[in-house]
Amino acid sequence: MNYKKLGVILGKIMVLEGVLMVAPLVVGLVYKESLIHILAFLIPIVVLFALGLLLQTPKPERNSLYQKEGFALTALVWIIMTLFGAIPFVINGDIPNYVDACFEMMSGFTTTGSSVITDITAISHSTLFWRSFSHWIGGMGILVFVLIFIPESNEGFSMYLLRAESPGPQVGKLVSKMKVTTRILYLIYLGMTVLEVVLLMLDKPIPGYENEKFFFSLLATFGCAGTGGFGFIPGSMELFHPFSQYVMSIFLILFGCNFSLYYLMLIGKIKDVLRSEEFKSYFLIIATAVTFVFSSLIWRFESYPQIYTTEEAFRHSLFQVASLMTTAGYTTTDYHVWPMLATTTLVLVMFIGAMAGSTAGGIKVSRIVIAIKGAFINVRKLISPRYVAKSTFEGKTLESKTINDVFAFITLYFFIFLTALFLLAFDPINGQIITIISDAGTYDVEHGFFSNFSAVLTCISNVGPAFEAVGPYSNFAGYNGFSKIVLTFTMMLGRLEILPVLILFSKRTWKQL
Amino acid sequence: MNYKKLGVILGKIMVLEGVLMVAPLVVGLVYKESLIHILAFLIPIVVLFALGLLLQTPKPERNSLYQKEGFALTALVWIIMTLFGAIPFVINGDIPNYVDACFEMMSGFTTTGSSVITDITAISHSTLFWRSFSHWIGGMGILVFVLIFIPESNEGFSMYLLRAESPGPQVGKLVSKMKVTTRILYLIYLGMTVLEVVLLMLDKPIPGYENEKFFFSLLATFGCAGTGGFGFIPGSMELFHPFSQYVMSIFLILFGCNFSLYYLMLIGKIKDVLRSEEFKSYFLIIATAVTFVFSSLIWRFESYPQIYTTEEAFRHSLFQVASLMTTAGYTTTDYHVWPMLATTTLVLVMFIGAMAGSTAGGIKVSRIVIAIKGAFINVRKLISPRYVAKSTFEGKTLESKTINDVFAFITLYFFIFLTALFLLAFDPINGQIITIISDAGTYDVEHGFFSNFSAVLTCISNVGPAFEAVGPYSNFAGYNGFSKIVLTFTMMLGRLEILPVLILFSKRTWKQL
Repeated sequence: MNYKKLGVILGKIMVLEGVLMVAPLVVGLVYKESLIHILAFLIPIVVLFALGLLLQTPKPERNSLYQKEGFALTALVWIIMTLFGAIPFVINGDIPNYVDACFEMMSGFTTTGSSVITDITAISHSTLFWRSFSHWIGGMGILVFVLIFIPESNEGFSMYLLRAESPGPQVGKLVSKMKVTTRILYLIYLGMTVLEVVLLMLDKPIPGYENEKFFFSLLATFGCAGTGGFGFIPGSMELFHPFSQYVMSIFLILFGCNFSLYYLMLIGKIKDVLRSEEFKSYFLIIATAVTFVFSSLIWRFESYPQIYTTEEAFRHSLFQVASLMTTAGYTTTDYHVWPMLATTTLVLVMFIGAMAGSTAGGIKVSRIVIAIKGAFINVRKLISPRYVAKSTFEGKTLESKTINDVFAFITLYFFIFLTALFLLAFDPINGQIITIISDAGTYDVEHGFFSNFSAVLTCISNVGPAFEAVGPYSNFAGYNGFSKIVLTFTMMLGRLEILPVLILFSKRTWKQL
Repeated sequence: MNYKKLGVILGKIMVLEGVLMVAPLVVGLVYKESLIHILAFLIPIVVLFALGLLLQTPKPERNSLYQKEGFALTALVWIIMTLFGAIPFVINGDIPNYVDACFEMMSGFTTTGSSVITDITAISHSTLFWRSFSHWIGGMGILVFVLIFIPESNEGFSMYLLRAESPGPQVGKLVSKMKVTTRILYLIYLGMTVLEVVLLMLDKPIPGYENEKFFFSLLATFGCAGTGGFGFIPGSMELFHPFSQYVMSIFLILFGCNFSLYYLMLIGKIKDVLRSEEFKSYFLIIATAVTFVFSSLIWRFESYPQIYTTEEAFRHSLFQVASLMTTAGYTTTDYHVWPMLATTTLVLVMFIGAMAGSTAGGIKVSRIVIAIKGAFINVRKLISPRYVAKSTFEGKTLESKTINDVFAFITLYFFIFLTALFLLAFDPINGQIITIISDAGTYDVEHGFFSNFSAVLTCISNVGPAFEAVGPYSNFAGYNGFSKIVLTFTMMLGRLEILPVLILFSKRTWKQL
């Protein structure tokens, strides 16, 4: 490990986080919050600047980093961003417990959106802004963001960072220069963000929150763009008008697309976009899932307490599928009480996730497609042992290494899932009865197996809300510290797609070179 | 596909099933059952003999079979055995619905042990015997059984059958001749079966069933040996005395071992057995799981209604871990009401299963070990891209092909799991409340997500009982026909380890060669 170089980059990241924290500080000033709320951000900003500049002082002998160093660095950056980003919540008292605050912050940066806040109405504007802003930062990747601003001559190194941080099995450069690629991607991201804010501003204000229109439009958009999904008023997006809910559904689906496709559209290669297998599969899955959820709500395969009009049923189906599949996790209604067909469909799209190269989590549509093709090849090989696979994906030959990497990834995903599930079994919360108050009424649920199962799923896929005792109208506050650390770690494993995090645990990574 | 040769082998199998059915017929005669119970077996026996001999008439031009034909044949044999084996239940009225009867029979042959019978006390002796006997037959594999009796000169072909039917990632021959290998394995199987029957006979009779001592010892042993687990009195093994429960626990663990290890022990190579990584991992997992389940019952991490003495807690922990990990599925108490740590541990061992080359289901300990080693290799390769893996398993170099096959298997297992889960979501049973009467008392449970989740798990891993609405004191009768067909198919996919079943769906398999 090239410790000095590592220090320099971590230092730069810390300065950057300090700069980013100025935004919530300004929000606090605009809303005339008390001194403690201003200090909550000012103190970490000063500390981050001081430490960040200090770390950059020694000149590294070797300026390059190896692949393993790039991966380990990526994981470290996310940990450090979380550890410092959580400090304001503790100082201003919005989340007094530091483990809770770290859970919340990791949930923000990884664009999970699971929260430990029990009363969202008691939270300050600056905290609300910082939480949602962290989705927007984390969505495209912290390091990808850094690459735009800091001069980094080493192309290979930039590629390692992008590979470690970008969701999906493969990463392609759009143009020959890494930095230009990331700039293009971020411009598209920014453009879509602005467009969504403008569209949300066109809607009527939310009754009781007339003065917050711009603030809420901005926060809602941060959550959509990063596919994060932190709520900022009771009931997540329940109080937003249907127009805004439709706008969000559409933008969620758009932010779940591979950003390279937008670049292709910009340069006029629409045909290439429409030919993309992942693109077609993504929309096919969304359409199928919406159809099943909608049908289950309309025909009611079982008795369930909530009755919607046809329009409401369609809107909630579209919104929930879009929100859970793109792993944002916003909600417009209590989907926990929906019939089993809806529940199971939502669980499945939470596993699948959206497209690679988007801001979303989950296994990713491309991996699912590759794995299914791989399964067909395996059956084919059993039929004709001398068969040489000639399968393609996105117009390129599907290498057996790619298939094997996908199989390995899904296996690891499954193992990490089961491990986290086991660790949650120790929590005394299990078996407790909690009362849920939602738009479906007031009811009791037991914190049972499905609660833990869906909590792990929502964290590893970076969705946000889960089911049962940790459903859309509940939160993660009831878990004990150990469980919260497990889930925090699970979010990071999910967001960085496992290997960059596992590499931290190898002694070889830390050897001085 | 070499249809004539296929017909000849299927014909032989049908004759064999006819012969096997003589056993329940004799049981019916011994217990002086009514004419319809005798005819229930006599009619299918006659039909099987007639059809079986008819199929063997045409002489095939080509005597050999290719690998794909061997695999497809294996899957077909299991389907045909089930379709014919289910007929007696319909005729004698014990399971009047044919879909239900096929579910029960597939559950028998695949050694799952899930049942659709709601009142076990109303079932005839001949039916009880046939169900449990099917575990014993299916445990070691139907075709493996056939290989002992029918002359099959083609060694390669026998190997394909063994590969298609034997649980686990690899199959080794013990001695040079396939047939000798299978004979040795079956002799060990038979010897252990006899030993367990004798030991169970030493116990006091079960109060109220004084005359059934030998019959029950035999059926209980069939279920242990095949790791099947059909119950034959109310409460599965609850009424058996502690001595019998301990005997069964130990034999379950023994039947979950790779049978090759017994052969090694017989020829004096004890050291090789103790050096086996799968053997050590298997016992380590059992010991760990028992410790966690026992601790959760003793220290009660949450409040739960059932209180045991320390001996009872230990016995039930040992029995349930042994029974669910070896995928037998016998129960001694209502484990559904146990604390979450016990529940989650049991779910995990149901995923893992026992050793390859045993009669058990699940993913298999060897695959888990190989997958974990594969994960380490992947991390290692990320650290040093030019690293050449030098990992070993069971003293042999771990080929990357083996690792990739294991990753592919686990991915497919996961996909099939999710597909079956989705298909069960259409059942109107979802959301219904059912009343459970168990040794823990009477309580209501909703047929929720965990019911379907554990139903799929118990079927794909060939365990038997699940949790919640399909728990140890419930049954699968409530599912509709479609769900039962899905679960029947899931059992077969689990037992034959996926690929031999998938191969049936390829047009290429059926092409005339």
